[in-house]
Amino acid sequence: MNSTFPQLLSQWAKEVEAALQHYFKPAAAPPLLYDAMAYSLFAGGKRIRPILAMLGAEICGQPRQNALPAACALECIHVYSLIHDDLPAMDNASLRRGKPANHKVFGEAIGILAGDGLLTYAFELLAEHYPQNCSALVLELAKAAGPEGMVGGQTLDMIAPQKTFLTSAFASLNFQSPPSNPPQQLLERIHRLKTGALLKTSIKLGALVAQAPKEQLDAIEQYGHHLGLAFQIVDDILDTIGANTGKTATDLDNQKLTYPALFGLETSKNLAQQAYQKAIHALEIFPNSPAKNHLENLAKFVVEQYHTKNNPST
Amino acid sequence: MNSTFPQLLSQWAKEVEAALQHYFKPAAAPPLLYDAMAYSLFAGGKRIRPILAMLGAEICGQPRQNALPAACALECIHVYSLIHDDLPAMDNASLRRGKPANHKVFGEAIGILAGDGLLTYAFELLAEHYPQNCSALVLELAKAAGPEGMVGGQTLDMIAPQKTFLTSAFASLNFQSPPSNPPQQLLERIHRLKTGALLKTSIKLGALVAQAPKEQLDAIEQYGHHLGLAFQIVDDILDTIGANTGKTATDLDNQKLTYPALFGLETSKNLAQQAYQKAIHALEIFPNSPAKNHLENLAKFVVEQYHTKNNPST
Repeated sequence: MNSTFPQLLSQWAKEVEAALQHYFKPAAAPPLLYDAMAYSLFAGGKRIRPILAMLGAEICGQPRQNALPAACALECIHVYSLIHDDLPAMDNASLRRGKPANHKVFGEAIGILAGDGLLTYAFELLAEHYPQNCSALVLELAKAAGPEGMVGGQTLDMIAPQKTFLTSAFASLNFQSPPSNPPQQLLERIHRLKTGALLKTSIKLGALVAQAPKEQLDAIEQYGHHLGLAFQIVDDILDTIGANTGKTATDLDNQKLTYPALFGLETSKNLAQQAYQKAIHALEIFPNSPAKNHLENLAKFVVEQYHTKNNPST
Repeated sequence: MNSTFPQLLSQWAKEVEAALQHYFKPAAAPPLLYDAMAYSLFAGGKRIRPILAMLGAEICGQPRQNALPAACALECIHVYSLIHDDLPAMDNASLRRGKPANHKVFGEAIGILAGDGLLTYAFELLAEHYPQNCSALVLELAKAAGPEGMVGGQTLDMIAPQKTFLTSAFASLNFQSPPSNPPQQLLERIHRLKTGALLKTSIKLGALVAQAPKEQLDAIEQYGHHLGLAFQIVDDILDTIGANTGKTATDLDNQKLTYPALFGLETSKNLAQQAYQKAIHALEIFPNSPAKNHLENLAKFVVEQYHTKNNPST
């Protein structure tokens, strides 16, 4: 792997940070609400979704700066989902990225409202900055974030802890009878909706900003799908081996369905590797370019995280 | 008042009901989430916001049916706000429209997610059905519903109960020193943001669907502003005289700032009457039409509710 790639990631994250400072301007919001939204929005993070949007625009031939408002909208959606997921009624997490969770600082009511505010503001950003292709962008983001996407995935995640998934989760999937390999099917559906949908949409928003032709959009969608899968498997692995820092309520504590719990660690690593290969393969239709190279490195970076985190010397 | 107006309202509400059945179709959502969203979306209600959108399109020269998807989006936003407002961390209400509140039936986690899902779906509806003027519609709705609108108003409402508003609320308004008439200023700001913003936007979305010229949009906005104010004052009055049924956690229980608490009942009724007059006045630029007549009757109906509800024989 290109040794400068982590440096590139951190440089792009700084561009995202500056864009958030520039575009996140609900100036007339009550100061307390503004503070609560900003507390979580500017709490750091890898900014993977915004970076995907930027690279998605770039691989389709546009300057990545054109995707910055969409990138900020994606981060608003991602951060709102973290705030709501951490609430006592949901995952009941008291830490996020090593800092007290939003509701621990501002209280549950303001935490709920800060999430609602960020979610709504994301669509304001798209409508304001992309009047020409507003419809395609809003439709893509709303579908990925809404009841058939991320919110749906979080619902399944809440009702499908390992101990009860055979009853409630099957009912929620409307299965007439249990399928042959139900846990894997359910697990993949949860991940696809909860994490995968927004990751896939992140790079797709960049391609939509660039008004990419259908063939490119399809390839981008494939890349995003497999990257999202790899991302989630690796996140499960990191939770399992205890390498995910800054979280208090891990999926293990909450007895959630995870890849290592279902397949064991080694098979999970192989599944992540397969997803990585498919992501790379999807990019083959694009001519060589720095953006293509970056997206290949990004996928590699995602699947190799457990090596790095498991072995602090690397 | 035209004796058939309440019948007209109930006929339009049925049109909204049918439109919701037609347009609210997150078919791939987990059934439990779908049920939770539908439970509140189809729990009745006067459907005032959707009706305003329909009449807004009609007074600007378009068939009101063209505004139905926008009308459904408005109702999704309104219903999401009710679900989140009723949560234990917020108003802690166990009844809504005479039925158990959403979180009482589905639990807090699913209640939060059902609200998130409806909020997101509203933007999907606008993007899908109005590709031509998506940007104007999404921008209008997001601003009215977001941190500078409804979510901001709910924040002020949460942090400004009567007993503490002189401290926390002033701070939240960023006042350097208390203004001359702070409670009225704060009360009006809360209502303008919490209820007024979405009511005003409701009729404005109809006018935007009709691609109305600026002069008409401005008049519609004035009407919506004063109607929203009248609506909120009357709602406060109904809470005070105990005529609001189907609510358990009233604003009085939660010691919230209300018009009657601040001005007394008679002055509040006069303020509602003044707002009504200003709403009617704003419509003067429109030529006579059934839609204009309906909007006048709607404003009259809103301010006369306390007569009706206070005296069951009328």
